[in-house]
Amino acid sequence: MTYAAAAALQESSTVIGYKTYLDLIPEFLQGKEILSSQMMKEVDRCKKALEQAETGKTIALVSGGDPGIYAMAGLVFQMAQKSGFSCNIRIIPGLAAVNSCAARLGAPLMHDFAAVSLSDLLTPMELILKRVEAAAAADFVTAIYNPRSKKRTEQIVRAREIFLKYRKPENVVGIVTNATRENETIVITTLDRMLEQEIGMQSTVIIGNSQTYRWNDIIVTPRGYSEKYSL
Amino acid sequence: MTYAAAAALQESSTVIGYKTYLDLIPEFLQGKEILSSQMMKEVDRCKKALEQAETGKTIALVSGGDPGIYAMAGLVFQMAQKSGFSCNIRIIPGLAAVNSCAARLGAPLMHDFAAVSLSDLLTPMELILKRVEAAAAADFVTAIYNPRSKKRTEQIVRAREIFLKYRKPENVVGIVTNATRENETIVITTLDRMLEQEIGMQSTVIIGNSQTYRWNDIIVTPRGYSEKYSL
Repeated sequence: MTYAAAAALQESSTVIGYKTYLDLIPEFLQGKEILSSQMMKEVDRCKKALEQAETGKTIALVSGGDPGIYAMAGLVFQMAQKSGFSCNIRIIPGLAAVNSCAARLGAPLMHDFAAVSLSDLLTPMELILKRVEAAAAADFVTAIYNPRSKKRTEQIVRAREIFLKYRKPENVVGIVTNATRENETIVITTLDRMLEQEIGMQSTVIIGNSQTYRWNDIIVTPRGYSEKYSL
Repeated sequence: MTYAAAAALQESSTVIGYKTYLDLIPEFLQGKEILSSQMMKEVDRCKKALEQAETGKTIALVSGGDPGIYAMAGLVFQMAQKSGFSCNIRIIPGLAAVNSCAARLGAPLMHDFAAVSLSDLLTPMELILKRVEAAAAADFVTAIYNPRSKKRTEQIVRAREIFLKYRKPENVVGIVTNATRENETIVITTLDRMLEQEIGMQSTVIIGNSQTYRWNDIIVTPRGYSEKYSL
């Protein structure tokens, strides 16, 4: 939680969000009108936020992570445009999985990186695998979002196969599940062995680049390919 | 600034950081021993932090942005490893340029993205351009870090040429300079015209994917390539 997000909540009269997230921040909700629901879907929440803002209220629409990274910000703008919404919309950035999971793993994102979601709900599988291949071949550190769900189990298997075309089996991999929550788990493994680990809906998989190494219980991607600093 | 970062500062007895950054947070430094210097370079600051921690003090090493994204975290671990440092190191994530610049531009990072630094100080130019090409060809939204400095002016020209091999001239581009500072500038332009804009050391350039569009003074990358939601 940033001070800017807290200030935005403070300034708002009405807070809208997914109940699971609002339950994490009771101290910021005192005296506010709360519109939360387990059942209200993303599109409904956005619609409600826009409708309420049109009445003159200041609304805070709460998102997990960073609303600007694979999250609610785009939907809000798309719906505002469609409905001819004319109020002011401000995006308050937050900590995305790339930020929080990287911090829990050590320092994997010291060099160029890519983020790829394996969810094919809204994106053709062909394009997803093209991106996985591009990231693997160009030696990007790669953060895999939505690596596996109960129904969608094959994507991570194929992504790993693609990586193994370009990277060594011992290429370092970090898996963070439920980052910063009570049931957080952190695993450091290799491309070779990553599928032996539990990977689910709440996991982010960070595949290091060819230079990433393990030290004790963390992983580090060196900043340079041609190390010019004397440490 | 997150609450977790504020708490870490609170718990520390000594704060080390680049003077320009420490000057932004005087309210967090009261009663602390401060080791800042315009002159002390990154390696020196890390060394000082590790040395001071070895004496038993709790040290906060302050970094701009997110210490885990192209920043100080890796150097700290590399130097700790080299010197046989045995104290506890905790990385507190923060808002990187990808978070803050995306928020200022609207919602460009709603889909897969890559971050590439054009600085060839520690990375061969060949590898940088290979990554630019991979990101362009696989239709990643692409955040360009260190796009141009006084001495290094050709890289952004070449990066744009590579993008134009795969993308339309009207592909949306956002440029944020000095994000969230007093002298912040935000420009929305196209691949075609981006070099007419001022781009410098403090700029981050975000090149949208083929679906990214401009709406009023913001840019939005739709979440899906096959739009399944009814808005």
